[in-house]
This record gives sequence, C-alpha cells and structure tokens, in this order.
Amino acid sequence: MNYSVVIYVLGWIMDIEAACMMLPCLVSIIYGEKEGLGFLYVALGALIVGTLIVLHKPKDMKFYLKEGFVTTALSWIILSVIGALPYVLNGDIPNFTNALFETVSGFTTTGSTLLSDVEALSHASLFWRSFTHWIGGMGVLVFPLAILPMAGGSNMNLMKAESPGPSVGKLVPKVRDTAFYLYAIYFVMTVIEVVLLLFGGMNAFESLTISFGTAGTGGLSIWNDSIASCTVYQQWVIGVFMVLFGVNFTFYFLLISGRIKQAFKIEEVRIYFAIIIFAVVTIAINIYDKIGSIGGTIRHSFFQVGSIITTTGYGTMDFDQWPAYSKTVLVMLMFVGACAGSTGGGIKVSRFIVISKTVKKEIVSFLFPKSVKKIKMEDKVIGHETLRSINVYFMTYMMIFAFSLLLVSIENKDMTSNFTAVAATFNNIGPGLSQVGPTHTFEAYSTFSRYVFMFDMLAGRLELFPMLLLFSPSVWKRKKKVA
Amino acid sequence: MNYSVVIYVLGWIMDIEAACMMLPCLVSIIYGEKEGLGFLYVALGALIVGTLIVLHKPKDMKFYLKEGFVTTALSWIILSVIGALPYVLNGDIPNFTNALFETVSGFTTTGSTLLSDVEALSHASLFWRSFTHWIGGMGVLVFPLAILPMAGGSNMNLMKAESPGPSVGKLVPKVRDTAFYLYAIYFVMTVIEVVLLLFGGMNAFESLTISFGTAGTGGLSIWNDSIASCTVYQQWVIGVFMVLFGVNFTFYFLLISGRIKQAFKIEEVRIYFAIIIFAVVTIAINIYDKIGSIGGTIRHSFFQVGSIITTTGYGTMDFDQWPAYSKTVLVMLMFVGACAGSTGGGIKVSRFIVISKTVKKEIVSFLFPKSVKKIKMEDKVIGHETLRSINVYFMTYMMIFAFSLLLVSIENKDMTSNFTAVAATFNNIGPGLSQVGPTHTFEAYSTFSRYVFMFDMLAGRLELFPMLLLFSPSVWKRKKKVA
Repeated sequence: MNYSVVIYVLGWIMDIEAACMMLPCLVSIIYGEKEGLGFLYVALGALIVGTLIVLHKPKDMKFYLKEGFVTTALSWIILSVIGALPYVLNGDIPNFTNALFETVSGFTTTGSTLLSDVEALSHASLFWRSFTHWIGGMGVLVFPLAILPMAGGSNMNLMKAESPGPSVGKLVPKVRDTAFYLYAIYFVMTVIEVVLLLFGGMNAFESLTISFGTAGTGGLSIWNDSIASCTVYQQWVIGVFMVLFGVNFTFYFLLISGRIKQAFKIEEVRIYFAIIIFAVVTIAINIYDKIGSIGGTIRHSFFQVGSIITTTGYGTMDFDQWPAYSKTVLVMLMFVGACAGSTGGGIKVSRFIVISKTVKKEIVSFLFPKSVKKIKMEDKVIGHETLRSINVYFMTYMMIFAFSLLLVSIENKDMTSNFTAVAATFNNIGPGLSQVGPTHTFEAYSTFSRYVFMFDMLAGRLELFPMLLLFSPSVWKRKKKVA
Repeated sequence: MNYSVVIYVLGWIMDIEAACMMLPCLVSIIYGEKEGLGFLYVALGALIVGTLIVLHKPKDMKFYLKEGFVTTALSWIILSVIGALPYVLNGDIPNFTNALFETVSGFTTTGSTLLSDVEALSHASLFWRSFTHWIGGMGVLVFPLAILPMAGGSNMNLMKAESPGPSVGKLVPKVRDTAFYLYAIYFVMTVIEVVLLLFGGMNAFESLTISFGTAGTGGLSIWNDSIASCTVYQQWVIGVFMVLFGVNFTFYFLLISGRIKQAFKIEEVRIYFAIIIFAVVTIAINIYDKIGSIGGTIRHSFFQVGSIITTTGYGTMDFDQWPAYSKTVLVMLMFVGACAGSTGGGIKVSRFIVISKTVKKEIVSFLFPKSVKKIKMEDKVIGHETLRSINVYFMTYMMIFAFSLLLVSIENKDMTSNFTAVAATFNNIGPGLSQVGPTHTFEAYSTFSRYVFMFDMLAGRLELFPMLLLFSPSVWKRKKKVA
C-alpha cells in the first residue's frame, strides 16, 4: 500500500468538504439561524487538517487498483464522519450515530432517515442534508482527479472505484475531460429542474434542496410527508427529473454532441424505459381501485416506479398500502436499479441485460450445440472479462445481502421489514416496506443494525469491493515493494 | 428432434409407473379398502399404452442433450399426470388440479400439500403419496438407462438432465453400474431407517411411508401434524436420516469401497455439516426461551434445520412462530439446499462453495493483480466451463424465481407468504412461512398459482433447463437433419 498518496487524497477530500460546508453557512446567514456555526467550526477544522496534509505532496504518486479502492472507501467514510459533526454540534441531531446515519444516507444518495420530524431541523441542516445527495450523486473523487496530475492510469483507477455501474464510459479520451462533461451535464440538468420548480411556485430553498435530492437520486426530503403535499405540477417535474437522472449520462453526452441516433440506440436506456413503462402500466391497473381517477393513478404509479427504479426514494403516497403485486414489482425494481453511469444505485439495468442474454445464450446452446454465439450489446461483443466481473458482482452482492439480513434479523423484527430495510439501504433507495415503509423511519432498528445499514449504503454506492477490501488484513500491511 | 426415441422412453416410463402402482394396490388389499381399484385401473391403462409404444422400437436410437432434456421434462410431467389419476378416480382427491399438485409435490420430493386432513385419505393413497417421494428422490430415468442399450453418450445425457447438482459423478466408468450403486445405497439406507422405526414402535405402514418421505427428502406425512406427535426416538431417527440422505452419495460409495479417508475429504460434505452445525447452534440459542429444555431445544433446532437444508419439509414444530433470526436462517437454508448428488433439492452446497471461492479469488486479484489463482475443490481445478455453467444456473434460477413471484403476487397475499411459497416449491422443501407455514397448506392460493407452483417444483427438481426448454418453439420443430 502506498499510504502517503492515500492520505494525500484524503487531505484533498477534507478541503473539498470544508468548501462545500460554506453553503449551509450561507443558508444560515440568510435565515438568521445560529445553527450555521456548527458547519463553520467543522469546516475550519477540516480545512486546517486537510491543508496540512495536502502541503506534504508525496514523491511517489503511483496508484494502483488496490490504492484506488482503499482511497475511495476511506474518502467516503471520512466525508461522512466529518459531514455528521455539524448536526451534533448545532444540536439538530445530538446523537452521533444518528447524525452519521443521516450523513451516510445523504452522501450515498440513499435517503433512509431516522428523523420522523425533519421539519424541526434548521435550514442549514436541511440544506446540508440535501446537498450531501448532490455531492454524493456524482462522486467527489473527480475533484482530486480534475486537479491532480497523477501517474499513469491512476486517475482511471480512482474513477473506476467510485463510478456506478459495470463499465466506466470514458466519454472522451482524457479522464479529466470526461469528468468535466459529466459534471456539466449534472449541473445544467439540476439548474433546469430548479427553474421549473421555482416556476411551479416553490421558493428558492425548496426548489434547490428538492432538486439536489432528485439529481443525486437521493430522496431525503425537507418535509415530513416527503413530497406528498407538493402540487401535481411539482410532482410531475420531480418525477420526470428522477427518471432523467437515472439515465446513463452517455446518452446526454451523445445528444449534446449531436449523435442523436446513436444516443437512442443505447440498449440500456431503451430497456430502462421499457421496464418503467411495463411497471407503471401494470401497477396502475393494480392500484386503480384504490385511487379512483385515471390521472391520479398514473401519476402515483409513475412517481413511485420512477422513485424506486432510480433509487431516489421520494414518495407521493404510502405504497406500503398497495396490493401485493405492486409492492412485489417495486421491491424487484429496488434490485434492478437505474442505468450504469447515472447517479442511481441498485444492481443496474445493464447488468440485468447481460444476465438475460447469458441465460438466453445458454438455452440456445442446448438446442444447437454447435452454434457459437457471442453475447453482444449494441453490436459490440461483451468480453469474457466483463461477463466474469458481472457474475462475480452478483455473487458478492448476494453474499453481502444475505449476511446483512442475518445480522439485522437478530433483533426480532418481521421479515418484510428486515428484507426491505436491507434492500432499501444496500440499493440506496431510502424507504422499504412495513416498519421501514414510506410513512416510517429506521428508528425502530437498534444502533447495531444502523451500522449494518450504513455499511450497506456505502457498499451499495461504491459497488461493493472498496468496502469489502477494508476487511482484508493484507490491505493494511505496509509493503516495500508494490507489485 | 428425434421424436420417436423420446416417445419410446416415455412408453417405458408408463410401464414403470404401472408397475409401481401395484404397491398401493397391494396396500389396499391388506387394509381391505376399495380405493385400490383406482390404482389398478390407471395402472392397467398405463401398462397398455406404454407397452404399445415400447413394442415399436425406433431404428434411430440417437439421443442428444436436447432430446435428453425434453424427455426428462416430459417424463416427469407424464409421471405426474398418470400418478394423479388414481386420487381422482378413487375419490380421495376429486379435483384434478389438486390431485396433480399433490403428485407433482410427491415426485419432485417437495412435500407441499393442499390437504389439511391427510388422515382422511385411504391407506392406498397415503402409501402412493409417500412412494412418489421415494421414486422421485432417485429419479426414474435410470430405469430405462439400466434396461436399454442406447447409442453413444446417450445415457449420460439422460442422466445429466435428471440428476441433482452441478456435476454428475460417474462413480464407475459405466453409467449402468453407477445407477446400480446409487440405487443400492438408496435402497439399503431406506431399509435401515424402516427397521429403526419399526424398532421404535411404528407399524410397517408408518415406518415405510415415513422412510420413503425421508429418503426422497420429500416431506409429505401421513399425519396432519407432520411428525410432531412421533416419539423423541422416532424424531431423532428421522432427523438423522434426513441429514444422511442430504449427503452426496459419492461419500457412501467411497465409504463402502473402503476409501474412507477420501470420503471424508469431500469438501461439499464437510461444508454441508459445518453449515448444519452453525445453523443448529445459533437457532438453538435463539429459540431456547421458547422451548425451555436443552434437549428439546437441540432436537427441534436440529430437526428443522435438517428438514429445511435437505429440502425434506417434515416438521416437529411450527417454526413460523420462531423469532426472526431463526426464520431468516431457515429461509436461507431453503436456497442453500443439500449436497449435489443427494436426493435433496435447492441450489446445492457445492454451487455455493464455488461461488464463495469465486468471490474470494476476485478480492485477492484486486490485492495482488499479478497472482493467477485457479479455483480448486479437493485439489482439482474447477474448469472455466463448470464456473460458467454455475453462474448461468444462478442467473436462470433468479429469473424463474422473480417471474414466479410476480405471477403469484397477482392474487393479493402477503409478501412473506408469496416469497416463501415460491422458495418452498422451487427448492422442493414443502412448507414456507405465514400462510404457507408448517401448520397451513397451499389451499389459500388460486388454481393459477397452484400451476405456477407445480412448474416451480418441476423446474427445481430437474435443475431448471429441461422445463425451460419446453417453452422454446424450436424444440418442437421437426427436423430432418439432426446436427
């Protein structure tokens, strides 16, 4: 392990977080709340420590996959720990575990909460809570990437570890440029949503925070009833933008570079919309009796489907009251997740496409043993290494899921709550069913289970392996020779 | 498709089933019940049709994997349809769907039932119900195999399709001899259990039927309370034999051929016992409060763990009343299943071992990118093709599971019932939780769902692909040239 470079990057992360905390400070000043002081103190502390570290630039900037994974995991843990401190200091969430839970849920864009009365929080804390979604949605490690010139391939290793989905699409040859384009798209789309919500009657604070939660596919709301009290227009805007943020960003990049035909050819995006349409229509038929009006049925169905498949977690209705079919579809969508290369979580649509094709190929090979068929996506053959890594991803996913479920089941809650609580945190959704349903929080679970959920949120957001590697003793061995 | 040879094998299957039905006829004579007539009529009918088919021996006996899969699926469907008729004819289960459900559940060694009062059935029907377990446990296609000389590799193709688990262990070079040894072990172990149960105070009818259910890892009982009213001695005998029938039969073959050291080296068997010990101990700690005595706690924990992991499904207690941790462990064991090459169902321990090793290897490869490690089991490298097929098995398994769950959720039952009902049938267990818990039957589900469950039972027993292939139109195309 090249410790010095890992610590160096962590220093940068602290500085970046300190800078980010200036925004809630500003909010505090605007609203004349003293809660902003908590953010100011923590920001200053982080800035001092971070800067002291950054001043010592390591000689050896080499960085391999192992260092990339460890840096990613540690960055997110440090981000969360520092990000939780203001809540404790300013008294909004006095308990550190709870504050950490809220911050991990924020950065990982999960949206699970322990707070039943979020409206009691200060504006600064509410703003920070939503802003962590926006930061976490796109990831923070792009910033050191964009700033630092790292040795051969290093940047890609960091980006690989943090980016959601099986294949990091380098949009343009240079990593730095790719990061720039991604953030630009992210920023512009967020601004458009903010403007549309302002236009729909929200104030600046509301439209900003709600848009942060949409853009990051987070789901922490500034209201106790999520967004159920928003107007129909506002709900449609949020719903449509949730779905848009779940699209592979390559799609937008192709659109803005004028390759429209190519954009609409992306198989993942097409299947993503096909799944959404299927789910919305069948759920609408299933819940029509409960709602009565066609417009309302479609809106609620669309919103909840969009919210779950993109792993956002905003709600316009308590879907825990829906019939079994609708709930089953939603729980399945929790696992499907959004497109790779979006801000959404879950297992990702593209992985499921590859899996379906693998199964289909197997059946064909039974029927026609001599046929040698390759698995293709958009006319490109999917290599053996990609297939293998998708398989391993699934296996690892299932193992972490099963282990988490076992740990959480030690406290005697009902199985639907346990199962969906793990599913909702591991896939970065937010709410589950039963005791963690849309009208509940995660308060029912013990401190121990809360830490399990935090691990799951981080593991889910960072695509499993960075967090797993932390448990391997050989990561922590100091070695002279890096192979 | 070589239709003629498929039909030829089906003819043999009918004859074999007709012969098997002589036993319930005999039981009927002993107990002086007229219900035996149903079996007699159906047996005669099957014998006539079967013999007419068998008399026309096809010229081309060639048989490829495709034919093997289709024959297997059709054999089991025909076995079940014919096996269900006597129940309808003799009035024990007048409804054909229900009779078919019971028979599919029997042959696939599942043990799910629709009958809340089994004690009302005639002795002949009860005997047949248990005997289908015994037939289904080892499979029926070995019989045509043992009788017929088929062209090159054909036998292996049939056996591959029917045998449980990823790798068909040819114990000895000849398929016919392998089948002989497997059936001999099966027969002798069943006899030992019968004797021990007779010794423990059961009558001949009881000890035979209960032993059939144990040997086939079936679980249909002749009593309404499964085996909860049996004596402690009887429960221990049944419990231990369940676990023994879940062991890879290669283990016993090695034992009787004196290769004891080699037998105990089988990794799957060791892990199988390790899982059982872990589950029994942790569940015992978890349920001790409910039961009170150490002896009773261990017995109930051992019995239920053994019953679920071997996918038998007998019960000494209503584990639906146990705390969440115990239920979660049991539900996980439903998926784990028994050893490959045993009579048990589920995904099989060996597949999970390979998966764990795959994940471990991946993590190591992140840490030491230059290490080229192969996945080994008992010092043998597991080939790429085996890994691939295990991965595909998982993917296919999940897809069928998800699809079944969706279909079953259309009728508005709670999610725990739906999930465990699919798990219990697909893994050939028997009971699930909640509305399909140990004290309930599958009666709550509609006819449509019952057919979904029947498909799942067959797909689970036949390792997915034979049943899936039936849905492929190209299977049914008549071709001149067989590639």
